[in-house]
Amino acid sequence: MIGVILNSINSPEDLRRLLPRDLSELAIELRHYIIDTLSNHPGHLASSLGTVELTLALHYVFNTPDDKLIWDVGHQSYAHKIITGRKEVFPTIRTYEGISGFPRRDESPFDPFGTGHSSTSISAALGMATASKLQGNPSRQHIAVIGDGALTGGEAFEALNNAGVSKANILVIVNDNGISIDKAVGGLSRSLTRLIASHRYNELKRKAWNNLGGNEAGPRRHNRRIGFFQHLTAMAKGLLIGRNNMFESLGFRYFGPIDGHNIDDLVDMLAKLKDLKGPRVLHIVTKKGKGLKQAEVNPVTYHAPGKYDSETGVQIINEEADQPLKYQEVFGYTIVELAQRNERIVGITPAMPTGSSLCMMMEQMPDRAFDVGIAEQHAVTFAAGLAAQGMIPFCNIYSSFAQRAYDQIIHDVALQKLPVILCLDRAGLVGDDGPTHHGVFDLAYLRPIPNITICAPMDEHELRNMMYSAQLPDKGFVAIRYPRGASVNVEWKNAFEEITFGQGRQIRDGEEVAILSLGHIGNNAIAAVEKVEEATGKKIGHYDMRFLKPLDAALLDEVAQRYKHVVTIEDGVVKGGLGSAVVEYYNEKGVSLDIRVLGIPDHFIRHGSIFQLQKDCGIDAESIFKVVVGMLQNK
Amino acid sequence: MIGVILNSINSPEDLRRLLPRDLSELAIELRHYIIDTLSNHPGHLASSLGTVELTLALHYVFNTPDDKLIWDVGHQSYAHKIITGRKEVFPTIRTYEGISGFPRRDESPFDPFGTGHSSTSISAALGMATASKLQGNPSRQHIAVIGDGALTGGEAFEALNNAGVSKANILVIVNDNGISIDKAVGGLSRSLTRLIASHRYNELKRKAWNNLGGNEAGPRRHNRRIGFFQHLTAMAKGLLIGRNNMFESLGFRYFGPIDGHNIDDLVDMLAKLKDLKGPRVLHIVTKKGKGLKQAEVNPVTYHAPGKYDSETGVQIINEEADQPLKYQEVFGYTIVELAQRNERIVGITPAMPTGSSLCMMMEQMPDRAFDVGIAEQHAVTFAAGLAAQGMIPFCNIYSSFAQRAYDQIIHDVALQKLPVILCLDRAGLVGDDGPTHHGVFDLAYLRPIPNITICAPMDEHELRNMMYSAQLPDKGFVAIRYPRGASVNVEWKNAFEEITFGQGRQIRDGEEVAILSLGHIGNNAIAAVEKVEEATGKKIGHYDMRFLKPLDAALLDEVAQRYKHVVTIEDGVVKGGLGSAVVEYYNEKGVSLDIRVLGIPDHFIRHGSIFQLQKDCGIDAESIFKVVVGMLQNK
Repeated sequence: MIGVILNSINSPEDLRRLLPRDLSELAIELRHYIIDTLSNHPGHLASSLGTVELTLALHYVFNTPDDKLIWDVGHQSYAHKIITGRKEVFPTIRTYEGISGFPRRDESPFDPFGTGHSSTSISAALGMATASKLQGNPSRQHIAVIGDGALTGGEAFEALNNAGVSKANILVIVNDNGISIDKAVGGLSRSLTRLIASHRYNELKRKAWNNLGGNEAGPRRHNRRIGFFQHLTAMAKGLLIGRNNMFESLGFRYFGPIDGHNIDDLVDMLAKLKDLKGPRVLHIVTKKGKGLKQAEVNPVTYHAPGKYDSETGVQIINEEADQPLKYQEVFGYTIVELAQRNERIVGITPAMPTGSSLCMMMEQMPDRAFDVGIAEQHAVTFAAGLAAQGMIPFCNIYSSFAQRAYDQIIHDVALQKLPVILCLDRAGLVGDDGPTHHGVFDLAYLRPIPNITICAPMDEHELRNMMYSAQLPDKGFVAIRYPRGASVNVEWKNAFEEITFGQGRQIRDGEEVAILSLGHIGNNAIAAVEKVEEATGKKIGHYDMRFLKPLDAALLDEVAQRYKHVVTIEDGVVKGGLGSAVVEYYNEKGVSLDIRVLGIPDHFIRHGSIFQLQKDCGIDAESIFKVVVGMLQNK
Repeated sequence: MIGVILNSINSPEDLRRLLPRDLSELAIELRHYIIDTLSNHPGHLASSLGTVELTLALHYVFNTPDDKLIWDVGHQSYAHKIITGRKEVFPTIRTYEGISGFPRRDESPFDPFGTGHSSTSISAALGMATASKLQGNPSRQHIAVIGDGALTGGEAFEALNNAGVSKANILVIVNDNGISIDKAVGGLSRSLTRLIASHRYNELKRKAWNNLGGNEAGPRRHNRRIGFFQHLTAMAKGLLIGRNNMFESLGFRYFGPIDGHNIDDLVDMLAKLKDLKGPRVLHIVTKKGKGLKQAEVNPVTYHAPGKYDSETGVQIINEEADQPLKYQEVFGYTIVELAQRNERIVGITPAMPTGSSLCMMMEQMPDRAFDVGIAEQHAVTFAAGLAAQGMIPFCNIYSSFAQRAYDQIIHDVALQKLPVILCLDRAGLVGDDGPTHHGVFDLAYLRPIPNITICAPMDEHELRNMMYSAQLPDKGFVAIRYPRGASVNVEWKNAFEEITFGQGRQIRDGEEVAILSLGHIGNNAIAAVEKVEEATGKKIGHYDMRFLKPLDAALLDEVAQRYKHVVTIEDGVVKGGLGSAVVEYYNEKGVSLDIRVLGIPDHFIRHGSIFQLQKDCGIDAESIFKVVVGMLQNK
C-alpha cells in the first residue's frame, strides 16, 4: 500500500535527502497512497491529487516548518499531511478522534495556520511575514497556496492589496485548475485563462528563467540576472497587448504560468523564487483529480466522492430503495417549482451550485440563477440589489460561510427590510468537516438582528412550505436554516401550504415535561419522547417551534400553563439561540419554570460522525431521554 | 444663502432644463450652500465638496430616478440630496428627526439603495442591473460611485469579478482622490496613481474620445466609432509597458482618468458612456474638500470638521479646560506606552488611523503599526497570522465595521485560540451617523463564540487596565469594546493594574435592587442610583460587571443572595447580550429573581444625539431611575 520511497519519508527532512530524480517516483507512490486510502476512507480526493507535485517541490525546496506554508481552504493538504509525519494516521482522516481534513495548528508544527474557509491564506502569510521581519528573521519564507476559486473571495484581494505595497517576504502560489469545488467563475478566472493561453508570453518567460540560471549564484551576479529578467518580463508584457495582469497591477512580481505537474520545473522555479525577496506570485496550472481518470474527467463529483473502487475509480453508491431525499435536493426541486410559478424569484449561490442543488435551477433557468463565485458578501448585497428592484432572491449559503456576510445581512438586507430569502444550508453539526464547517452559530448571530424572520424545518414538507411561504407577498427578510443530508419522509413532494409566520405546532400532547425543539433536531426529540413513554409510561409534550423569530408567544404561554418542566433543544450554540430566547421570554413574563437548555456547548466541536457529535453535545435521542427522565424523577 | 440657480432646482428634472453652461455656476452655488450649511450643522464636508461636479453631471446626463445611482459609503451624497428635493431640509442633516447623513431608501426615490458601510455599491448595482434585464428593461443604467479607498474592501472586488463577466449594464465610477477618510493605502491605490501619471496613455484616450464624436450618432455609425476607439485603446495599452489595469483584467472596459472637477468633460464623457452597454469603469480624479482651502489642504481633518467659520474655513473648537480625554485618545496613548514596554505588541487599523488614534503609534513606531486599508476581514486574519508567530496584535476596528470580520473572528482567531486583542471602538450608540454605524450588535454576536474574553471599560482607567491585562501572557483572545467620545475622569493616566479576567466590581453597596452594568453606560447607572437615593432615601446596589464573558459567577451568586430585584443595563441589543447572559445564568442555577433587562430594543435605532437616543431606548439615567423606583414600589 505504501511504496518503497514513501515508506522512508517520515518528515520533509527525509524528503530533502532524496535525489531530484526520485521525486517523480515518490509523486506516483504518494498519489497511489491517497487514492488507495480515500477509496474506503472518504475525503477530499480531487484537490489533493492536483497538488502532489507541488507539495513535494515545496517541502523539497523550502525549509519547512521554519519556512511557513499555508494551504488555503486546506482540501488540498493531504499529500502535505502524509509527508509531514502523519503517514500512518492518514487513514483516520476526518474520523472521530482521527486527524482533521484540514490543516490545524494543534495537529502539527508543519501546519502553521489552520484553514477550512477560503481566501484567508494570504492575510495569514502576510501577518507571519511581518512578524518574522520584526523578529529579525527577514529571510524566512512565507508561502500561501491558493486556488483560483479561493482568489475570488474578497479577503484574498484585501490581502493582495496590502501585501503588494509591503516588502514582506511572501510567495503566493496560485493553483489554477479552473475549478474550486464547482467550476470557478468570474472575471479573474477568465483573466487567468487568458494568461495561460498566451503562449508567446510564456515562452519569453521561460527563456528569461533559463537566462537567470541556477540559484547558486552569488548575490551580485544574482542581482544582475534579476535585472535582465525584469527587462525581459517587461518586454514580454509589452507584447501582451490586452493581457492585463492583476497581480502586477497590485505590486506583486508575477511568474508563470508553469505546469504544476512537472516536478522538475516546479523545483527549479521554486528554488529561484526562494532567493528573491518581497511579494511574489507564482501561477501554476494543475489538473484537479490528476492521476485518477474519473476524477480528472469529473472533478466536481470527485471533489469528495465518498467510497470508490481504488483500481477503477468507480464510485460505490449504496442505492437503497425508498430513502428520503436530502434537504439539499428538496431545496433544488422546490426552488425550480416555485420559480416556475413566480417569475420574480431568482436564485443565488456563492460557488456551491452542486452542494446546494441550485444547479437544478441554473440548468433549467440559466437567466435566473447565479453562481457569483466564492463571494458570500457580494452574494448577499447582490441579493439585496435584486430585491430592491422588485425581485425575490433565494440566496443559498452554507451556514458557517454566511458568517462571512454578517455585515451585509444586517446592513444591506435587514436594515432596508428587503425581501431576501436566505437559505442557510449545512446548518447544525456537519460531521466530518469539523469545527470550521459546523453551522452552529447561525441562530445566535441572526436572532439579535431586527426585521428578520428565522425558521428551521423539521422535515422536507416544512422546508417546502417555508420556502413557499417566504416568497408570498410582504414577508420581508426570511432566513431558513436546514441541515446537511437526508430529510425524514420518503414522499417529499407535498402540496404547498402557507405556514403562518411565528407559529409553532404541537407534535404531541403530554404532561409534566414539554420539549420545545427547533428544526430537524426535533426528530431526536420524537425518538426521545417515545423512549420516555416506553420506559416510564408517561406521555410528555413535544412542540416544534418552527420559528426562532418571531417566537410563538401563545404556544409558550400555553406550555407555561400546562407543564412544570421545559426542555429546549436546538443544534446551535446554547448561548444566544432558542434556549436563550425561551428563557428570556419567560423571564420577561415573570413566569417561573424549570427550563433546561440543550444545544451545542460553549466550545468548538471536533469532527466525527454527526451521531457521535450529537452524543458528545448531549442532543441525541438518548441524552434527551435521560434529561427528561431526570426531570420526571425530581419533580 | 441659496443661490439663484440652485433656488430653481427642486429635482433633477429642473436641472436637465438648464443649459450646459449654467452647470458650472450651479456647482459654485451648490458648494457654497454646502460649506455654509455645514459650518454650523456639522457633517461630512470634504467628501461632498469633492463630488459636486460629478453629482450635477450624473443627474444631468442620466434619467434618475429611473436610472439607478448608488453612492458607496454615502458621505459624498450631500450635493445629491440637495438637488433631489431635499434642499430645504438639508440643514437638518444628521439631527434627530432630520435627514440622514447617508442615502436611505425610505428618504427619497433618488436613493435606490442605502449605504453607510463601504464597498457595497457595485454588488447592489449589479443586482439592480440584473433585475432590470429580467424585467425587460435592458437599457436602464445602474451607476455605482465608489472611492479609491472603498475599492480596497474585498466585497468591491467580489462584485467587480462577478460583474466583469456579466453583460450587465453597470457603470462604476471610481472617484479617485487618494483619500478615504485617511489616506488610501495599498497596491490598488498605487496602481491608480500610476494610471493617472501616465500622460501618454491619457492623451491617447482623449484623442480617441474626440474621434468618437458626439453621442448623437446613430447606432451603426456609433458602433464603427467604438471599433475605432477600441483599436486606439489597445494601441495605448500597448505602449503602457508595465501599466497593468486591474479593471480590464477583470473584464471591464476602462475609461479615464479624467478631471472630476471639469463639468463639461464629465458631461461629455458620461453622455458617451451612457450609450455603451455592459460593465464599464470611469476613473475620475477629484480633490477631496474642493472649494474650501483648509479642506483641500487637510482633507482628513475636514472629513467631518465639526463647526467652522464659513468664510475662512477655520474650525471652531471649544477648548474647555479640564475635559476628559476621548476613549480613542486614551487608546492611542496607552498602546504606545504598552508597546514601549512589550516589544511583541503591534497595532492594526483598517483605514481608521485618525479615528482610532492608532496614528499615534504609526508615527512613533511606524514598523509596528499598520493601516491595512478598508479591509476588516484581512485586518483580523492578518492579526491572527502575527499572533501565530508570537506577536500580540491590538486590532482596532469600529464595532459596526467588525461585523465585516465576523467569520475571521470565529474561524481564524477564536478557533485557534490566538492572542489577538480586538479593540472595538465606537461601540454602543454612536449618535449622528445612525443605524448603519451604531455598534450595538457586538456583545450579542461575540458572546456565542468560544475561547473569547469580552470586556468593556466603564472609564479610561478600566480601558487602560484592560489593555494592560490583555497583553499579559496567556490571556488568549480578548475583545475590549468602548464607545465614541469622552471618557469620565480628567486624570486619565493611572498606573497599570491587572484586572482579573471574569471579575466584576462593586460600585456601590445597597439593598433590594441591584443594577448590573457593562461598560461606559454604567455611568448612567451611577447617576440613576444617586437619583433613587435622593428621591426615596433607599440605597440600591450597583455592580460594574466589566466582563460579559466569562461572567462573574461569584458576583452573580452574591447578588442573588442579597437582592430581590436585578436590573441589567448595556448599550447593546437586548437579545443576546448581558441581560440574556444574566437571565440564562440564573435560570441554569435555578434561582428565581425579578430581572429587568435594559438595552437597545429589537429595532434599528435612528440617528440623533446619543443622549436623545439613550432616552428613546430607555437607558438614560432618568429611565433607569424610573425602572428602579417602579421595582421598589412593587416589591
